[in-house]
Amino acid sequence: MKNVAIIGGTGYGAIELIRLLHAHEHMQVKKIISHSEHGEQLASIYPHLTDFIDYPMEELEIESLKADIDIVFFATPAGVSKQLIPKLEDSQLQCIDLSGDLRITDRSQYESWYGGGAAPQETLDHAVYGLSEVYREKVKEAKILSNPGCYPTSSLLGLIPALEENIITSHPIIIDGKTGVSGAGKSPTAMTHFSETNDNVKPYKIAKHKHIPEIDQYLSAVASEPIAVTFAAHLIPMTRGLICTMYAQLRKDISTKEVIDLYKSFYQSDPFVRIRAEGGFPTTKDVYGSNFCDIGIQVDERTNQLIIVSAIDNLVKGASGQAIQNANLMNGWDEQHGLNSLPIYP
Amino acid sequence: MKNVAIIGGTGYGAIELIRLLHAHEHMQVKKIISHSEHGEQLASIYPHLTDFIDYPMEELEIESLKADIDIVFFATPAGVSKQLIPKLEDSQLQCIDLSGDLRITDRSQYESWYGGGAAPQETLDHAVYGLSEVYREKVKEAKILSNPGCYPTSSLLGLIPALEENIITSHPIIIDGKTGVSGAGKSPTAMTHFSETNDNVKPYKIAKHKHIPEIDQYLSAVASEPIAVTFAAHLIPMTRGLICTMYAQLRKDISTKEVIDLYKSFYQSDPFVRIRAEGGFPTTKDVYGSNFCDIGIQVDERTNQLIIVSAIDNLVKGASGQAIQNANLMNGWDEQHGLNSLPIYP
Amino acid sequence: MKNVAIIGGTGYGAIELIRLLHAHEHMQVKKIISHSEHGEQLASIYPHLTDFIDYPMEELEIESLKADIDIVFFATPAGVSKQLIPKLEDSQLQCIDLSGDLRITDRSQYESWYGGGAAPQETLDHAVYGLSEVYREKVKEAKILSNPGCYPTSSLLGLIPALEENIITSHPIIIDGKTGVSGAGKSPTAMTHFSETNDNVKPYKIAKHKHIPEIDQYLSAVASEPIAVTFAAHLIPMTRGLICTMYAQLRKDISTKEVIDLYKSFYQSDPFVRIRAEGGFPTTKDVYGSNFCDIGIQVDERTNQLIIVSAIDNLVKGASGQAIQNANLMNGWDEQHGLNSLPIYP
Amino acid sequence: MKNVAIIGGTGYGAIELIRLLHAHEHMQVKKIISHSEHGEQLASIYPHLTDFIDYPMEELEIESLKADIDIVFFATPAGVSKQLIPKLEDSQLQCIDLSGDLRITDRSQYESWYGGGAAPQETLDHAVYGLSEVYREKVKEAKILSNPGCYPTSSLLGLIPALEENIITSHPIIIDGKTGVSGAGKSPTAMTHFSETNDNVKPYKIAKHKHIPEIDQYLSAVASEPIAVTFAAHLIPMTRGLICTMYAQLRKDISTKEVIDLYKSFYQSDPFVRIRAEGGFPTTKDVYGSNFCDIGIQVDERTNQLIIVSAIDNLVKGASGQAIQNANLMNGWDEQHGLNSLPIYP
Repeated sequence: MKNVAIIGGTGYGAIELIRLLHAHEHMQVKKIISHSEHGEQLASIYPHLTDFIDYPMEELEIESLKADIDIVFFATPAGVSKQLIPKLEDSQLQCIDLSGDLRITDRSQYESWYGGGAAPQETLDHAVYGLSEVYREKVKEAKILSNPGCYPTSSLLGLIPALEENIITSHPIIIDGKTGVSGAGKSPTAMTHFSETNDNVKPYKIAKHKHIPEIDQYLSAVASEPIAVTFAAHLIPMTRGLICTMYAQLRKDISTKEVIDLYKSFYQSDPFVRIRAEGGFPTTKDVYGSNFCDIGIQVDERTNQLIIVSAIDNLVKGASGQAIQNANLMNGWDEQHGLNSLPIYP
Repeated sequence: MKNVAIIGGTGYGAIELIRLLHAHEHMQVKKIISHSEHGEQLASIYPHLTDFIDYPMEELEIESLKADIDIVFFATPAGVSKQLIPKLEDSQLQCIDLSGDLRITDRSQYESWYGGGAAPQETLDHAVYGLSEVYREKVKEAKILSNPGCYPTSSLLGLIPALEENIITSHPIIIDGKTGVSGAGKSPTAMTHFSETNDNVKPYKIAKHKHIPEIDQYLSAVASEPIAVTFAAHLIPMTRGLICTMYAQLRKDISTKEVIDLYKSFYQSDPFVRIRAEGGFPTTKDVYGSNFCDIGIQVDERTNQLIIVSAIDNLVKGASGQAIQNANLMNGWDEQHGLNSLPIYP
Repeated sequence: MKNVAIIGGTGYGAIELIRLLHAHEHMQVKKIISHSEHGEQLASIYPHLTDFIDYPMEELEIESLKADIDIVFFATPAGVSKQLIPKLEDSQLQCIDLSGDLRITDRSQYESWYGGGAAPQETLDHAVYGLSEVYREKVKEAKILSNPGCYPTSSLLGLIPALEENIITSHPIIIDGKTGVSGAGKSPTAMTHFSETNDNVKPYKIAKHKHIPEIDQYLSAVASEPIAVTFAAHLIPMTRGLICTMYAQLRKDISTKEVIDLYKSFYQSDPFVRIRAEGGFPTTKDVYGSNFCDIGIQVDERTNQLIIVSAIDNLVKGASGQAIQNANLMNGWDEQHGLNSLPIYP
Repeated sequence: MKNVAIIGGTGYGAIELIRLLHAHEHMQVKKIISHSEHGEQLASIYPHLTDFIDYPMEELEIESLKADIDIVFFATPAGVSKQLIPKLEDSQLQCIDLSGDLRITDRSQYESWYGGGAAPQETLDHAVYGLSEVYREKVKEAKILSNPGCYPTSSLLGLIPALEENIITSHPIIIDGKTGVSGAGKSPTAMTHFSETNDNVKPYKIAKHKHIPEIDQYLSAVASEPIAVTFAAHLIPMTRGLICTMYAQLRKDISTKEVIDLYKSFYQSDPFVRIRAEGGFPTTKDVYGSNFCDIGIQVDERTNQLIIVSAIDNLVKGASGQAIQNANLMNGWDEQHGLNSLPIYP
């Protein structure tokens, strides 16, 4: 049984880690670390946890982490892990970073999109990008794991097979992203205000979202040529769920059925990716609370475009669930361990 | 490993049974029976089940039930189980009825509230009412189990301690019920139409809800005097969740803190009932997807009224979860088996 | 044409006043006053107002109010109007206060429920409580108007006819209130956070809501005896709408039909109150965006209780609409002027 | 004062016409025609209309239409108006068709997308397409008016200026459409079921939506070359509102600011189109209940794509509001008459 610490204990990422780890037989949460709320009981903030966590949150102490913990999950805002992880590299700790700090390998790119200084080059070199289905073998060897963003998880899993199989051109690639409000986190803001978000669709960060360089970087790696995607994000009046609708030019005549078959064989060994049959498209509720990424495909013969729809739960496959999937791989456990519950429906 | 059949396979009760039984180690679903959809794959109706159920739904056959199955869950509309269960009583089958057919022991009461003829008196005599926390010992001996309604589960768990402890008068008892739309089932109707339900509160069946005689019957049993409650139901724009706010006259001066202590000791051996500390009140999201019933208490000194708030997930503790809790008791398994996941939040 | 100033320009009460006054032919908004945002264009905060307001918000100046304005609407948080209105009493200004500062005539009651000092007794003596249907004649003479709270508007209109007609006892009176999130205002808080409010019902301020003394005060006035109500508030996942379900003991045998007839005759001259026929109950969407208060009635013969359901739009009849209705009465205009649009449905 | 008949009286299109015409001084609703519900009071189906409509719905009678009515609005499902309007052409009636029957000028196109036979060529030749901002002069002369679909209204108003100004290429043009559930109408279906739609995004009719040939037809007319768009529709958990996010390749270097200026001058005489300033994007709530089409623009320099976001209320500018705007033009009234209320926010 490995001992786990969660840093950033009061955010949704941490709460979802706690929910999922509660069902995990090889990891137990030993420390919940919160700078702002240390000393507090988590259940005083999240009453749904009543009777489940009986110890208070702690202030961060590097040495006690190294002494008592095997795996650290960083469920922290941008800027935290890039400072802490370098201080932990000399230990045996496995670090899994749910933030964006280690996702961009080009430091100048990070700095132009995220602002502030990037993580040390050495740390970036050690970090493995944890898109489990694509980098599984590297993940198994990782000690520092950079967990993908929610939009990148959905769009990379949707686009990579088409690029790998070379059936679409590399430009233009359009990604229309739609996310539930939990993606904006727990802090109350105008963006998360019920009265302004309910019964409303809000486009935001059009062509300016931090996830764009992350998507570009990993698509370019697959295509072995520079790819720049056009990405627009939309806030949807739902709590959980994220769906990307993607549009790309087909290189040749190919039927919807043929593309579906390509995707099915590409993901045949991936238990968390489900490809819909022809005419079927996933909805976000189809994956609610689960680690699945469900994908639907349509060839638009009239316009020679490939349309790909990719749905995940932004807090599970888009964050905490994939983090646990990666922890499973890093420790040689069954990739599905603790993640095999059914989606909750309706 | 016991073999399970679910009758009424396309309704939400059945879908929730399938979700919860997927995590159960002593029961496996062998037959999903649907009169309207037999021959169909369940995943064609519920794509979130893709890869989980690989056999088609069946038409009901009494003999094959008796031959292959140990436990039958009736997730059927009113009127079905009262006809089928009598035909199964001569077998070893355990029957767990999620419908209202066996809840009302007085046949004339059933007929006046439900319409149509009541179940045979003999079947009613054999049926045990599965409010697990209150009738645990009887449930352990049951072969025919009548699973409580959603509103009765919430309101009986909220009111019984106060009546048992004799701190409230038996009249008037006011129950203001609020439910999510999933309680209205899968059939599309004006009541379940998004455009008419979203951003709306709809009072319905004011003082006329079928759950009233059920609540009266079991409160009267506890109080050893006839009790008639005043009950108003409200449809809330949410998918899951049910909360009853209850109001009753206090017999004597007693503080909120003292009532909370009474409730905590009353439910001290009940893992699924959580009593909030003074000043805290449950929300429906605090129990989302879980088998908990969370209760909050307030004494209104100005008016000498006891206010009790009781929240459940209508599809879990209010239906399928409690049914599994009862199956656990009936078979001598851990009462919490398959039901110990955390609520999903947010 | 009267000149209007709105104080508290960035709140929802002000925004709704602006929407409704846009259709008013006898009042024009000349000043929008905001302490926090003066100098800003309102449309920069509320883009839906683009092209409608072409002047910036102002800082408050008492003298320019007296010089240029005829009617001042206070859409301010508690504590503001009690300080400003005394400074305006020596002018010809009509002051309409949407806050709670002038609603409680007993200063010690105000101080125990609201905290802080109450308004000067002289100001309280001058203020008329603007429950238009009940105090119409006094409102016509008012110069200082205290606009009712949202819950009091719904519950007083629902209960007063039954008390006036002496068909219910004065104790216990139970009010179960349910409100949309817009009632919590524009400030982002945990209470207004989409992810924590969506798909959720949150009981709050059980037996402790500031609106309780207001309801008690005006029910007691009608009943000519002290009345204390039991009130529980619930936050509902909808933007607009408020509904109170009320329960009281009947003094005598009376049918639902007879009570409906009493209510219809009580409100026969009130264009904004609609009484449903027997078996019909209002939903909050039935009054969405309008100044109506829709009321449904049921006698529960089994328990001798009268159940009254009263629905309003919390931002219209519960705030800005009723304020305009009162301004119409204070100035001798048609009571419905600017308020006769249909509810928006669906 | 012109006399109006509404055919299809129980649908949302009719209800919204009734709401908007209630504020119109030159048109009065004289007949509400419903085949399924004639003889019924509309308020029995829509209680929010209580006290507003005091006559029953009627069965259709061609002769009484011709005798008593000046303007007929067809708020009917596909297939009705193509049969009725030819029978009315010999009268003085103005016919405004909210259905799709007369939108597609190529009869074979209609038949392949809609199924069933198209309207007579003569009727199609007489019908004017009522995208008011683009075809204003033709609309003023129209006697038969084909009112645009909701998605076409949003996307044509968003794309036409860019094509007119020749700043984008004609292929590929991507339209990602997102609509509220009211667009699916009043009939209860799986698509409109609250429990399956709430907290969910549902892609539907990907590359197969009936509105595609309508968009193609009018874009091609503007571009004077055949255009085929790639269109994907998504059902969003909100009641009202429709937003299209559009992506097209820029022909030349041009800044966001320059494109915004082009759009502002293109729509300078159009009171219902509002172009956001740079960095601003409309949300559906910004136009809720109003006839506005709000447009936001972003040039993605990285990918040389133009991104256009266009938001409407699907029941107002997307249906009944635009129908009234067209009736105003057809009769020489102020284009804004009866449509100048502010959006309702929040």
